[in-house]
Amino acid sequence: MDLDKDNKISITVIRRLPKYHRYLGELLRRGINRISSKELSDLTGFTASQIRQDLNNFGGFGQQGYGYNVEELYNQLGKILGLNKVYNTVIVGSGNLGQAISNYSGFEEAGFKVLSLFDKNPKVIGLKIRDIEIRDVDELGDFIKENDVEIGVITTPREYAQDIADVYMENGIKAIWNFAPADIKVSDDIIVENVHLSESLFTLSYFLNNKEDYVKN
Amino acid sequence: MDLDKDNKISITVIRRLPKYHRYLGELLRRGINRISSKELSDLTGFTASQIRQDLNNFGGFGQQGYGYNVEELYNQLGKILGLNKVYNTVIVGSGNLGQAISNYSGFEEAGFKVLSLFDKNPKVIGLKIRDIEIRDVDELGDFIKENDVEIGVITTPREYAQDIADVYMENGIKAIWNFAPADIKVSDDIIVENVHLSESLFTLSYFLNNKEDYVKN
Repeated sequence: MDLDKDNKISITVIRRLPKYHRYLGELLRRGINRISSKELSDLTGFTASQIRQDLNNFGGFGQQGYGYNVEELYNQLGKILGLNKVYNTVIVGSGNLGQAISNYSGFEEAGFKVLSLFDKNPKVIGLKIRDIEIRDVDELGDFIKENDVEIGVITTPREYAQDIADVYMENGIKAIWNFAPADIKVSDDIIVENVHLSESLFTLSYFLNNKEDYVKN
Repeated sequence: MDLDKDNKISITVIRRLPKYHRYLGELLRRGINRISSKELSDLTGFTASQIRQDLNNFGGFGQQGYGYNVEELYNQLGKILGLNKVYNTVIVGSGNLGQAISNYSGFEEAGFKVLSLFDKNPKVIGLKIRDIEIRDVDELGDFIKENDVEIGVITTPREYAQDIADVYMENGIKAIWNFAPADIKVSDDIIVENVHLSESLFTLSYFLNNKEDYVKN
């Protein structure tokens, strides 16, 4: 098993799981029922032994000489990733990015149900994005408690991120998906997953200027 | 130096550079002029020795007993990341995500100049997002060549991603920032940086269901 010193499954293994899940979904769409770890390796760029090791952390899935049943592995990985449940979700920041997330049908299909968007701009409060209402951010805390919200998304400008994180924390949010270019501080029992788009773009521009360091990743 | 087997600076070091840059920008905004690697360590969560090692890959910046000059290091890192230049950029897919990127002033300030959005939907072609026109995707190739476009963003649904990547490649784009949940295939001399939002969200839900594996990252 690929465990770190505290006996946790390592973050690099965990971050590969959604990739495997995505590739398997693609195979399913193409009607492929069965795949060897060698073929999965060609597809994903990870070595066959890496793939076997990764999956062994969660129980053996493949069969010697047969490979993996695509649908079964896809479903198992979905379960490991917690995609067999529904998560009540809210988004603070109803700009383009907040709307993009609330509109993306793939997230809802995977169980992430956006109940409401929140904003502080009176001009947008009361509007609907598809059928999702934009509410006043002052109502955020009560809404979270009344609707058993587990996941809170932050798509506000940087300067509001910590205040929103505080409201999330005080009202029992379990996980925060943060898009604001700021590091938010919350208690250790709250999961924080950051998406810092600038960091991705700046990595791209680093490689553009230092091609010799570029590796497909 | 932290080089991999081909003598490249390793991707994990490179991905920390934009983080350092972001933290230093934050310090600058707070009016802090000087910082020790110990303080930078407390701030970023990386060890002081890690930080020194990372920065040593690009020349020594700190001074024994003094630490780092915040503004100088910020500017040097900006230069290493290629943020001292202007990159002509286009975005294909004028939905919420494409608009979010074209509207984000931080990208333009860092040198990424969005010249045009492209779409295939006749209802939006000709519209303007702020002052940026949405053009017909059929004009993409010519536009790239006529305007020395270096960076192409993909914010289309999955099924169009490879077609757009092909047009980018055929017309001399140097780097692709891909948000579509698909792996695009291009020749090795083109930099590809992927942002797969689903993978981030599914990692969050993994941790929500496996709190014992969660490490702040």
